[in-house]
Amino acid sequence: MANKTIKVEGMTCGHCKSSVEGALNKLEGVNGAEVSLEDNQVSVDYQKDKVDDAAMVDAIEGQGYDVVK
Amino acid sequence: MANKTIKVEGMTCGHCKSSVEGALNKLEGVNGAEVSLEDNQVSVDYQKDKVDDAAMVDAIEGQGYDVVK
Repeated sequence: MANKTIKVEGMTCGHCKSSVEGALNKLEGVNGAEVSLEDNQVSVDYQKDKVDDAAMVDAIEGQGYDVVK
Repeated sequence: MANKTIKVEGMTCGHCKSSVEGALNKLEGVNGAEVSLEDNQVSVDYQKDKVDDAAMVDAIEGQGYDVVK
């Protein structure tokens, strides 16, 4: 299993945390996602052969947040 | 119809706005609620004979926010 940390702007509260984690966890190939509001980032455990970066970015942006590239 | 403005702490984003407005709008006697995130407050249109202050405060606090008294 791989892990990556994605920097995200605009997450302010528990609802934001749940939205981003929920969107990522719905993706096939994502095993877990945990947002740190303090660090403005989400840590994702995933399977490299099943999900790519673009899908994760799309999931986050689909919730209305900007990914820092 | 009466109107009152309630000061609320901790609302940071659109999800917070929706949570507070939704909880108030569910109350019998509330005709409308609109959160201003900028002003940390919610404006409520309501019928005095159907809903009291305590019920509105409970609805807001039930969503995890503090009412400034």
